[in-house]
Amino acid sequence: MRQSELFTKPRKDAPKDEISKSASLLIRAGYIDKLHSGVYTYLPLGLRVLKNIENIIREEINSLGAQELLLPSLHPKENWEKTGRWSAMDDLYKVTDSSGREFALAGTHEEVIVPLMKQFISSYKDLPVAVFQIQNKFRMELRAKSGILRGREFIMKDLYSFHADEGNLGAFYERAKDAYISIFKRAGIGERTHFTYASGGSFSKYSHEFQTVTEAGEDTIHICMKCGVAINDEVKKEHDVCSDCGMAEFKKEKAIEVGNIFKLKTKYSEPFDLTFKNERGENEKVLMGCYGIGLGRLMGAVAEVCADDKGLAWPDALAPFRYHMLLLGADAGTKRFAEELYTEFGKKNIPVLYDDREGVSAGEKFSVADLVGIPTRIVVSDTTVAKGMVEVKKRGEDATKLVLGPDLLRM
Amino acid sequence: MRQSELFTKPRKDAPKDEISKSASLLIRAGYIDKLHSGVYTYLPLGLRVLKNIENIIREEINSLGAQELLLPSLHPKENWEKTGRWSAMDDLYKVTDSSGREFALAGTHEEVIVPLMKQFISSYKDLPVAVFQIQNKFRMELRAKSGILRGREFIMKDLYSFHADEGNLGAFYERAKDAYISIFKRAGIGERTHFTYASGGSFSKYSHEFQTVTEAGEDTIHICMKCGVAINDEVKKEHDVCSDCGMAEFKKEKAIEVGNIFKLKTKYSEPFDLTFKNERGENEKVLMGCYGIGLGRLMGAVAEVCADDKGLAWPDALAPFRYHMLLLGADAGTKRFAEELYTEFGKKNIPVLYDDREGVSAGEKFSVADLVGIPTRIVVSDTTVAKGMVEVKKRGEDATKLVLGPDLLRM
Repeated sequence: MRQSELFTKPRKDAPKDEISKSASLLIRAGYIDKLHSGVYTYLPLGLRVLKNIENIIREEINSLGAQELLLPSLHPKENWEKTGRWSAMDDLYKVTDSSGREFALAGTHEEVIVPLMKQFISSYKDLPVAVFQIQNKFRMELRAKSGILRGREFIMKDLYSFHADEGNLGAFYERAKDAYISIFKRAGIGERTHFTYASGGSFSKYSHEFQTVTEAGEDTIHICMKCGVAINDEVKKEHDVCSDCGMAEFKKEKAIEVGNIFKLKTKYSEPFDLTFKNERGENEKVLMGCYGIGLGRLMGAVAEVCADDKGLAWPDALAPFRYHMLLLGADAGTKRFAEELYTEFGKKNIPVLYDDREGVSAGEKFSVADLVGIPTRIVVSDTTVAKGMVEVKKRGEDATKLVLGPDLLRM
Repeated sequence: MRQSELFTKPRKDAPKDEISKSASLLIRAGYIDKLHSGVYTYLPLGLRVLKNIENIIREEINSLGAQELLLPSLHPKENWEKTGRWSAMDDLYKVTDSSGREFALAGTHEEVIVPLMKQFISSYKDLPVAVFQIQNKFRMELRAKSGILRGREFIMKDLYSFHADEGNLGAFYERAKDAYISIFKRAGIGERTHFTYASGGSFSKYSHEFQTVTEAGEDTIHICMKCGVAINDEVKKEHDVCSDCGMAEFKKEKAIEVGNIFKLKTKYSEPFDLTFKNERGENEKVLMGCYGIGLGRLMGAVAEVCADDKGLAWPDALAPFRYHMLLLGADAGTKRFAEELYTEFGKKNIPVLYDDREGVSAGEKFSVADLVGIPTRIVVSDTTVAKGMVEVKKRGEDATKLVLGPDLLRM
């Protein structure tokens, strides 16, 4: 894409009403825009990152054999009264229509997925089954000051699994855990993301979280010095030693929860009477698991931990473009060289942001490239073109190297 | 995908609370599920159709040079007060948070796209620009009895264009019109979809609609017998002759609006003071166009007009799978033949729904295939396999032909 045609423009000044580093950088670089507290627009650059995250998540969740669907956001009050969460969940937005009928604006989807699956699950032969969606959630957050790390409206992948017995639930849970590990690794934050023992919050008694170490995190975790598994501070006093390896040496860190998985067991099958007939013809309750990842939060967490004082620095898999090509210099031959290279990238479907803006200084183009944080910067200037080359630099490294144009197309 | 693993199951009986033919068929075949009036879940088959529609629309709108973004649904009341629609729009859902602050649950997005673009448009050099999104909308429909043809919550592609003068707006408007024609043609309803002169509704004084002829439509249109352009009944008395070719012979038909395009001009730039500096340094108001297509409505319209008394009949481009392969007969060799073919389809990324269900009669499999409406049915039976062949039949045709397995893979 030509940067001259991109309608967003980088901002020199940090927005005054953002205390979150990631939100401030994402706004300055033109990835997101704040509509109001906790509610953001994804601009073209930001939507490209979000789609990359979505594709990674979809691939990994599909590989579990889960089937994708799309649930609505407007839920009948009756469904939420059945689980008691109509009154118990204080971050639930409620809507009344002109006939006086009340609806929940879904912050989670157990209240509709369970009655839906009840239509299709009646026998042990229908189990196990897992379904997921990638869809909007609404939560009336009191602390919506962390940019897209904690939104009032946000996109989430939520996966629900249904099982005949605990062994089957446990086996799927382990596979889901591995898929999550793979997602965070592919998103570039694998090394600083820890599988964490945690309380169940409003969902269930026990849960596991994936916590990414960052000063911007609102949680505190204790990371086992031996195996890397962590314990959330909220349940640390129940755990003297690491739950996995038994060691007692921990490192305390601030972290942000980027994913969570719960064994719901019969918590939601009970209120909706979701049962199945076992092999002996007896009715049993269906056991459930649920597994969430907020896409915006993951994007914000990656932005947060991969940024430096010059701007964002995306991992390859999440970056909106593979290359950021800067045209410097006014020579007609230089421009022709850049245009031809851009055309070749297009033919090969290599995503490039091409800074073809005229009347913008080299210094300004360099600082914008650092701010936007595309992994590889390519400079096409009078000097490089005189040698028939371009200059290539990785974001976050100082070293540059001269490369032949055709070599770049093979990289 | 193996039909034995698909968690949804075809229903023999029509749902009692659906008067819409398309909704009834889509529910029976397992494409959608009704949560409550006007609010539906897209099940795996339905989501595949919806994604096909989304991809067609995205390709066509991208080809206009429009840039994709994603706007939020929770809008501050103040934005809607500025345009007067907070009180004027009677299908607007309103939400109040615990602090008493009010929000609109967006049924359209002019109220946030205009202030957003105001940040980036200041000069004639910033124009023209067009942006779009594919996102949820909420409208408090009184008549929500047409299934996904008229939802209270639905996915829409909304495109907004911004121009310096009427000539530029007009030229883009014509290109958008052509993109719409292309979308409906690719979706398989080109021949029965008419470009229609209509009133502006709550948006503007004038608009154009794309109307698809069907008995299920809530609109009446008058189609010019010569050129095929139509006039909506609501403005027919203002048009004695066809607006395009001047002929006066019309055919009256029931139809459903599957798309609409509006020249908003300064209707929304005025309340938000969206202006630009022209080449002489003077401030002028930005001119706007907006262009909508409801994805679910398009899916419902195609379902409606392409169905017959046996069930759905998808056009190739929208079908959830290219082939519906039915395994009939209990012979081990027959099953092996089908399994090998299914594996080959997988290797070639050809999407196939493979009815490998055991204990289901041939008659049942045939009637489900007709109900689900995948364009091409493949039967693998003891008889066909004895000849080393499979039987191929197009949905809606009676003729069958025997084809060699390898030939099928090249089709």
